[in-house]
Amino acid sequence: MQKKPLILVSNDDGIDAPGLFFLVKALRRIARVTVVAPSIQQSAVGHAITVRTPLRAYEFHRDGVPLGYAVDGTPADCVKLGIRTLLKEKPDLIISGINDGLNTAVNVIYSGTVSAATEGTILGIPSVSVSLEFTPKPDFEPAARFSAKLAKFVLRQGLPKDTILNVNVPAIPTEKIKGVRYTRQGRSRWDDEFYQRKDPKNKDYYWLAGKMHVFDHEEDVDQIALKSGYISVTPIHFDLTHYQFLEKMRKEWNGKFKIQL
Amino acid sequence: MQKKPLILVSNDDGIDAPGLFFLVKALRRIARVTVVAPSIQQSAVGHAITVRTPLRAYEFHRDGVPLGYAVDGTPADCVKLGIRTLLKEKPDLIISGINDGLNTAVNVIYSGTVSAATEGTILGIPSVSVSLEFTPKPDFEPAARFSAKLAKFVLRQGLPKDTILNVNVPAIPTEKIKGVRYTRQGRSRWDDEFYQRKDPKNKDYYWLAGKMHVFDHEEDVDQIALKSGYISVTPIHFDLTHYQFLEKMRKEWNGKFKIQL
Repeated sequence: MQKKPLILVSNDDGIDAPGLFFLVKALRRIARVTVVAPSIQQSAVGHAITVRTPLRAYEFHRDGVPLGYAVDGTPADCVKLGIRTLLKEKPDLIISGINDGLNTAVNVIYSGTVSAATEGTILGIPSVSVSLEFTPKPDFEPAARFSAKLAKFVLRQGLPKDTILNVNVPAIPTEKIKGVRYTRQGRSRWDDEFYQRKDPKNKDYYWLAGKMHVFDHEEDVDQIALKSGYISVTPIHFDLTHYQFLEKMRKEWNGKFKIQL
Repeated sequence: MQKKPLILVSNDDGIDAPGLFFLVKALRRIARVTVVAPSIQQSAVGHAITVRTPLRAYEFHRDGVPLGYAVDGTPADCVKLGIRTLLKEKPDLIISGINDGLNTAVNVIYSGTVSAATEGTILGIPSVSVSLEFTPKPDFEPAARFSAKLAKFVLRQGLPKDTILNVNVPAIPTEKIKGVRYTRQGRSRWDDEFYQRKDPKNKDYYWLAGKMHVFDHEEDVDQIALKSGYISVTPIHFDLTHYQFLEKMRKEWNGKFKIQL
């Protein structure tokens, strides 16, 4: 009998997050699952890795059963350490999530959830990140069931080299979800605002706030697909080259911009 | 008389880093310069932003003269807080660096230096990151002079919306630098290795090490341009959509992958 595939699960909300719990539960129906996740909340850490200090990993149990490892580090650290050292076997798939809040538009580059999947892809393993729209009482079940379906599909189908799937699920009742839409990353960004306050010693401190400014309206954009009741699946990569402008630079800048150092 | 342009300088090596000192010195010849940089070393923080704790900013002086602000945060925090709160005037340009070590290939996504420039671009300001190849006794002067020349050019010429310039300078004598090459981001990545050791209490800890595995050989790739004696200038953006695969998914996946939740 063939061994069941192995899925590595990580996240950025921490190893005890409900989103991870429901994801693991759903994935266990189709695979063996090992978790390597941050020991504490790591939201908005971007693609941070820990290089200046050592990392610690702790075996983690739930209901007396081994779940995997908690790591005192970032999501990308978890995946690196998991693949390179902690896991005895290379996983067939990595799923990061389920994040409590969307990772659409510019959030993709701030997202620890996405960075865990990106790191998996860098290490040559098909990787998916899953996020659920924020809502006060989130129900992770539909997103978890979708993750298991997508996992099964990706395990069979594979993903092209250096391609990550970034999945976002709207926080609406299951029966209202219209289907899947394959989308591009939107251009919406934050109207940042810093609360400026005084501490007990009368010194200034600043705290980031602000709200998302939605610039997009086209149907094939992540944010808009969600608004229309679809699960958004965006294929992303980590070649950040702006090829269009590169071509222009090569044609036009070479003549204009000379260096003498 | 027209006011001189204002350049905001940040980095990830910290406000007292030599690379920043030489950059500021060179830029002061062509512009007014304000620094908003991390109070301590922030390498490999990726595009992290601080959302769960408040930030502090301190006026910072050098030789009794105001230089700008040190922030207890990441490079992206510095740029956000600088633009939104600390600076009384919107800068005309942001330069992040000069980093002590290259930010080529996959390092672009781990880089705090690049993330400061990316954040500047998100906020609508033309932004450039500059890194110098690591060498035991770095000479930041040539890279600083190049940065000033490029700054002058970009101030005149502008940059397209959402486009960052990622500059890498080889650590070779000035007279050996052959010129500028407009490049794409390479595919080289790290062969990670974790040192696994025991602490004084006989507990395991892990420390990330490893070396860069250069996969690329084409002349128009960042890493190879540097090896050939050129300064590498890569235009990058933060739309991570994998458009090629997106098209394929829309054609081929729609039929194959159905959801019933």
